[in-house]
Amino acid sequence: MYTWPDISIDRLRTERRERLTSLMREQGLSHLVLTGFDHIRYASDYRTQIIAEAFDWFAAVVDADGVIELFVPWADEDVKQPDADLPWIRAIHPIPSWAPAVGHPVYWTTHVAQALTGASRVGHELIDPQVLDGLRAASPTTGFVPVGHLLYELRIEKTVEEIALLDAASKVNARAAEAALHTAAPGLADFDVLAAAMASAQRDGAEFLSHSLCNHRRGSGTWFGQGTTLREGDAYFFDIGLYGAHGYASDIARTGFVGEPPKAVADAYRTLITAHHIGEEAAKPGVRASEVDAAVNTYLESRGLPRTPYAMGHGVGLRACELPTIYRSHLVDRDFVLRENSVISLEPETGVRVGDQFVLLKVEDNYHVRADGLRRLSDAGYGLGLT
Amino acid sequence: MYTWPDISIDRLRTERRERLTSLMREQGLSHLVLTGFDHIRYASDYRTQIIAEAFDWFAAVVDADGVIELFVPWADEDVKQPDADLPWIRAIHPIPSWAPAVGHPVYWTTHVAQALTGASRVGHELIDPQVLDGLRAASPTTGFVPVGHLLYELRIEKTVEEIALLDAASKVNARAAEAALHTAAPGLADFDVLAAAMASAQRDGAEFLSHSLCNHRRGSGTWFGQGTTLREGDAYFFDIGLYGAHGYASDIARTGFVGEPPKAVADAYRTLITAHHIGEEAAKPGVRASEVDAAVNTYLESRGLPRTPYAMGHGVGLRACELPTIYRSHLVDRDFVLRENSVISLEPETGVRVGDQFVLLKVEDNYHVRADGLRRLSDAGYGLGLT
Repeated sequence: MYTWPDISIDRLRTERRERLTSLMREQGLSHLVLTGFDHIRYASDYRTQIIAEAFDWFAAVVDADGVIELFVPWADEDVKQPDADLPWIRAIHPIPSWAPAVGHPVYWTTHVAQALTGASRVGHELIDPQVLDGLRAASPTTGFVPVGHLLYELRIEKTVEEIALLDAASKVNARAAEAALHTAAPGLADFDVLAAAMASAQRDGAEFLSHSLCNHRRGSGTWFGQGTTLREGDAYFFDIGLYGAHGYASDIARTGFVGEPPKAVADAYRTLITAHHIGEEAAKPGVRASEVDAAVNTYLESRGLPRTPYAMGHGVGLRACELPTIYRSHLVDRDFVLRENSVISLEPETGVRVGDQFVLLKVEDNYHVRADGLRRLSDAGYGLGLT
Repeated sequence: MYTWPDISIDRLRTERRERLTSLMREQGLSHLVLTGFDHIRYASDYRTQIIAEAFDWFAAVVDADGVIELFVPWADEDVKQPDADLPWIRAIHPIPSWAPAVGHPVYWTTHVAQALTGASRVGHELIDPQVLDGLRAASPTTGFVPVGHLLYELRIEKTVEEIALLDAASKVNARAAEAALHTAAPGLADFDVLAAAMASAQRDGAEFLSHSLCNHRRGSGTWFGQGTTLREGDAYFFDIGLYGAHGYASDIARTGFVGEPPKAVADAYRTLITAHHIGEEAAKPGVRASEVDAAVNTYLESRGLPRTPYAMGHGVGLRACELPTIYRSHLVDRDFVLRENSVISLEPETGVRVGDQFVLLKVEDNYHVRADGLRRLSDAGYGLGLT
């Protein structure tokens, strides 16, 4: 198991809760209704990420003092003060277990409404609209306002503890990447490469495995392994992720080669890594996200290679992908200005045609944005003697 | 890699699409807006489950003929007819990549609204309420109705192809469970056990790893591994899951023992397995879900053991947990009647105090509900000579 950093859990919890209650004051909110595993963790340090489907299994009602009523599928009766370590959780309450919220909208509405008694103005994020309409009907004088984007804005700048945890998550993810790269050999399958990565992350004590994607001989536009067999000279990429200690994420990608790749592939890959470094140089506090995207893609296209056909990067925190979004300005609501002490990912992609095959090439790292530029957190190697 | 069954993909797609368009006709819907990876797969066979966070990354607008406009984060321009195999997908359109929908609500609203031009009555499931409010404002004469529960009702009875795929997913998950049980040994950690399971599932070609939970010496009420070391005589349980070929899920649990457990633990575990079999006997077409819950829990409590503190079971399909919900009737919207050709999970839990420790015991299997009773799909052993 990886030796996860010994952070101050008290400071982590206090700083997050203070930021959240400040936001509520600024927005004039008497309550929040949260359903996202990340938002509930941020507000309470209560973990709900039990399965990839848990996004509509939980709810937390937070009052202006940060006191919380939690609705959980793993209890069949109310439990007051369920965790001495988390005294701000006043109670947990049952909600229909092992079912999507949309399967039991009446139970959800009735019980969440009870926790909102006396609420004047409630902020919400993603919640089943039928449940939200029910809450509105139950409290016709209460205002309900979407604050999901503000909850993510609040988290763009990370605290010292958050950065230490994101650093550790990226170290563990990099170890998983190295395990995958060392496993790949002729005759093995794409899934064997991913198995090595996921086993490494799990052994290291990741809280949750978020994704394990692989493109091997699949051309452009697809990310999913399919059981193909690796052959000498092949390139493949994998994109893997996890939530580490206390739920902080890492999301990285590497291109691997089985033996020696064809020269055209090696050349394109070197160009990709140069483009990646150009993006790293461009990404500084005060720079617009679209400028980072442009720096990387302009270089790729100047070398006759395809641009990255999706966002060049994103924030990393209690979700693997959060704000800011690093992309072209016409494809987003807002062209974010990069900020010190955010943690971001950069993930350029390109590719090259070799014979009848289009070989996709990709790399992704996670970084701490500092005043003087990026510090890379994910220290897996790039191969082909590149650094 | 596991040899996944050679099903008729054409029949799988056709039968799902026919069911969905029938539902739309019955409900008088001109369109559906879908965001769930499971609903989009059902409607289109297009895979969107790229990461545990993908629940708010995609949208599909389905018209009354089942023709689909897809919004995806992995494209930066419109692509018409993106997949010759899926001709009902008219186009894919970009949506802000690698970001929660709530981070870019204006882009989402504007672009999804364009695909709804001319819509008269639109069914939706879980979607960001801010986006839905935006769609309502953009089309004030269009009706928007929640149909999430109907979409899950539609899927309770599985087709022949779906059952074959769910069977295979459970076989692969059972192999993962056996790998975990064989790995456990004194000196290893809970995470090593989970690593064996996840590596097995991934090597076998699972599309996605949905969850990897473990309770080892953690008492009641928690499901998360934490890096504890296994010792002779210990009990532990794990609950693991995956989406297999074509996205069909499995969700199972096993209790394992390191060497010989104390007699009180072994006795309680035998009682749990007997309770499990009582639940299997009770679960037949025409029986109410609450009767299955009562049969198992009444038996556990009659033997002086705690009842299962959450739903006793659930449907399994394109989500690991879908309808029906098998629980007590006061904790759900509806006490479902079990139906032939559904696929369900049963997952009783109990526990026993030994000295200062409360040992949690759990088992979970997946079943095909047939006219004459259950056929177990997850063929991992129970240990202690039990069958």
